[in-house]
Amino acid sequence: MTDQDQTLPETARLPRQAGTENVSPRTGVSRRRLLGTAGATGLALGAAGAAAGYAAAAPAGAAPLTSLGAGRAKFHGKHQPGITDALQSCGHLIAFDLAAGAGRTEAAALLRRWSTTAERLMAGEPAPHGDTDVARDAGPSSLTITFGFGHSFFDRTGLQKQRPAALDPLPDFSSDHLDKARSNGDLWVQIGADDALVAFHALRAIQKDAGGAARIRWQMNGFNRSPGATARPMTARNLMGQIDGTGNPKPTDSDFAQRIFVPGDGTPSWMANGSYAVVRRIRMLLDDWEKLSPAQQENVIGRRKSDGAPLTGGTETTEMDLEKTDKNGEYVIPVNAHARITRPDQNGGAAMLRRPFSYHDGYDADGTPDAGLLFICWQADPLRGFVPVQRKLDRGDALSQYIRHEASGLFAVPGGAAKGEYVGERLLEG
Amino acid sequence: MTDQDQTLPETARLPRQAGTENVSPRTGVSRRRLLGTAGATGLALGAAGAAAGYAAAAPAGAAPLTSLGAGRAKFHGKHQPGITDALQSCGHLIAFDLAAGAGRTEAAALLRRWSTTAERLMAGEPAPHGDTDVARDAGPSSLTITFGFGHSFFDRTGLQKQRPAALDPLPDFSSDHLDKARSNGDLWVQIGADDALVAFHALRAIQKDAGGAARIRWQMNGFNRSPGATARPMTARNLMGQIDGTGNPKPTDSDFAQRIFVPGDGTPSWMANGSYAVVRRIRMLLDDWEKLSPAQQENVIGRRKSDGAPLTGGTETTEMDLEKTDKNGEYVIPVNAHARITRPDQNGGAAMLRRPFSYHDGYDADGTPDAGLLFICWQADPLRGFVPVQRKLDRGDALSQYIRHEASGLFAVPGGAAKGEYVGERLLEG
Repeated sequence: MTDQDQTLPETARLPRQAGTENVSPRTGVSRRRLLGTAGATGLALGAAGAAAGYAAAAPAGAAPLTSLGAGRAKFHGKHQPGITDALQSCGHLIAFDLAAGAGRTEAAALLRRWSTTAERLMAGEPAPHGDTDVARDAGPSSLTITFGFGHSFFDRTGLQKQRPAALDPLPDFSSDHLDKARSNGDLWVQIGADDALVAFHALRAIQKDAGGAARIRWQMNGFNRSPGATARPMTARNLMGQIDGTGNPKPTDSDFAQRIFVPGDGTPSWMANGSYAVVRRIRMLLDDWEKLSPAQQENVIGRRKSDGAPLTGGTETTEMDLEKTDKNGEYVIPVNAHARITRPDQNGGAAMLRRPFSYHDGYDADGTPDAGLLFICWQADPLRGFVPVQRKLDRGDALSQYIRHEASGLFAVPGGAAKGEYVGERLLEG
Repeated sequence: MTDQDQTLPETARLPRQAGTENVSPRTGVSRRRLLGTAGATGLALGAAGAAAGYAAAAPAGAAPLTSLGAGRAKFHGKHQPGITDALQSCGHLIAFDLAAGAGRTEAAALLRRWSTTAERLMAGEPAPHGDTDVARDAGPSSLTITFGFGHSFFDRTGLQKQRPAALDPLPDFSSDHLDKARSNGDLWVQIGADDALVAFHALRAIQKDAGGAARIRWQMNGFNRSPGATARPMTARNLMGQIDGTGNPKPTDSDFAQRIFVPGDGTPSWMANGSYAVVRRIRMLLDDWEKLSPAQQENVIGRRKSDGAPLTGGTETTEMDLEKTDKNGEYVIPVNAHARITRPDQNGGAAMLRRPFSYHDGYDADGTPDAGLLFICWQADPLRGFVPVQRKLDRGDALSQYIRHEASGLFAVPGGAAKGEYVGERLLEG
């Protein structure tokens, strides 16, 4: 389900848009590099590129791009990118509010600009509306840009009748310590890439496209393990040192699409093939957590730190034996263990696809790290995904005393744009 | 000059310390993976590793570590790591002040702990004083940890007589807007790695080692391009989109060591083979910068954005023709161009090795990005490296109106530790 194109035939990697005269198909150069045909041909292309943008930067005989730079996700498709694509090493989340006086017309124009920018940048081309050169030389590096609408967007644009019931505000949870200024927002953009400058370049392009139509409400930076840093099949590790995401539904599950995406004939119709993102800035109280012994930490989670296997044995993918008891008659996986509580068959089949980034924003004045998880989960319906699980966690999760939910957002992420279409067009032109 | 050991013979990659019973040689597993001999042997090692730490996490048949995870810099040596090693994609800078009541004895014990931790982590092993598991599974990922002493350290430890004259406070520059709370400090640690979790893991280990002996004064996070994201021979690009570091002295220059490192018979003797680091948090006023046309930006710098070549032609490595004029008789490289002013032969031969990270700490309330450069430069003597260049820039650099120096530090970074020695031992036990 990752939409990387390294394995696509050569023609598939050609630019999908002709582009304007002064925008060069940087991917053409990347392809040339990949095919190892630099040299005389390279010089010729280089000369052509000199007047035409990014291509000029590729010296003849340059080393081939590795798969890291060449990784390319698809902008067009049934679903938006950045949901089932592999986790990238760098992420930015940014929320905007429409500016005073901006409404549906301005929002439509903005989504059109953003979609053009996302398509170009994800193909490794310069931004269409003035490029900063920060991503110059680099391949697309698996860049994804994903757009969503918050509850307030529909009031601001007079589209209340189109607002999905699924965007109703999340219930309060007793463990919430939410900063309203860093929660929600009219518009939400998720950016991920395997190169930090490519990701920053995209963030800046998205911000500049907003122009006078929208202002930044909040912005957060995150990270994951770099591709190639581990030989282990990747389930992410978080800043508590735990393998995180083992219980995720798999694209090969028969009900995967049903759980994660709004059906093609779902309601509202503009959300066909879309998904709902719940975003939580979850601070980890690492000073408290790290006072626990490894065995105590494993009892909080219910899984081994080393490999994510259930405490009842096996490997990361082995089913938990929730009934197994030790010689004292105690459950091996404690009743309040995080993995027990979040297990889908303990929650009426609720399932969500978790796709988080870790974050670290330095230290508080007392030396406490401001670090944790930018938790992002995807589901067809938050009332059957995030909400029931979080309700249950709220009542008895052993992990809860080591974390604090500091910000929250819920966004309707429409389906992917068809060629010639912009993201959200079915809402804004509907 | 990069001390990576992928090319070393197998025995060279064995752990350099026997370690304690419960610390497993994770590098041994990495080596096994690299040699592709997992399987029955892997299972046997895995079983042994299950009781012994990180090694247990390697499943039999795991994919080989790529060069990214396997990259390993040397802790022991003539110089400390992190000076001539290749720029990593993730960086942390952290400064500490000794705690009230802590002096030379506590500082010596701290540097001893830190050195042990740095040696272990740089070899891809767990931290010796309680590991958080955050780097578990990952290879060393070219981790470097570098230690320095600030001016105030010598007062706190009664070692004023050992304080180098080179640590005298930097002069004030008219463009400074320095935040004292984020400047200087008794102790400074630079961490770099090609994986964000490996870097965070090291940062946290260094913090925990400080214990009650020192408290965090300031901490900053930075980044560079990921290895493999570009096919271009790497000179870093910064957040202004400029190639940055072209003028750096090369390790192959005959006077490289003389310019960057204190001689082996230099003064004070404890600084033999050490270097001085000037650290500046340089904010980039990107909103102003990006209003300039590409041609205007190139005139500010004196080099082409695309490839870093001088405006007088050639490639990035071509010498600037400072006398060349255009048809109007104007210098092609303007008199106030940044590249002209910083050129070593315009500064009495001053030279420093610049090894920066970019940073991005989100946005101010008005939508201005808090982003720029964690400028770090290395030299044998700041009065012949950073200071004369910055003085000249201060008087007429065209770039100065687009940047703001917001924090500053100057640190004495002693030579590398020999085996069995800790960093700074020649000062603290001298």
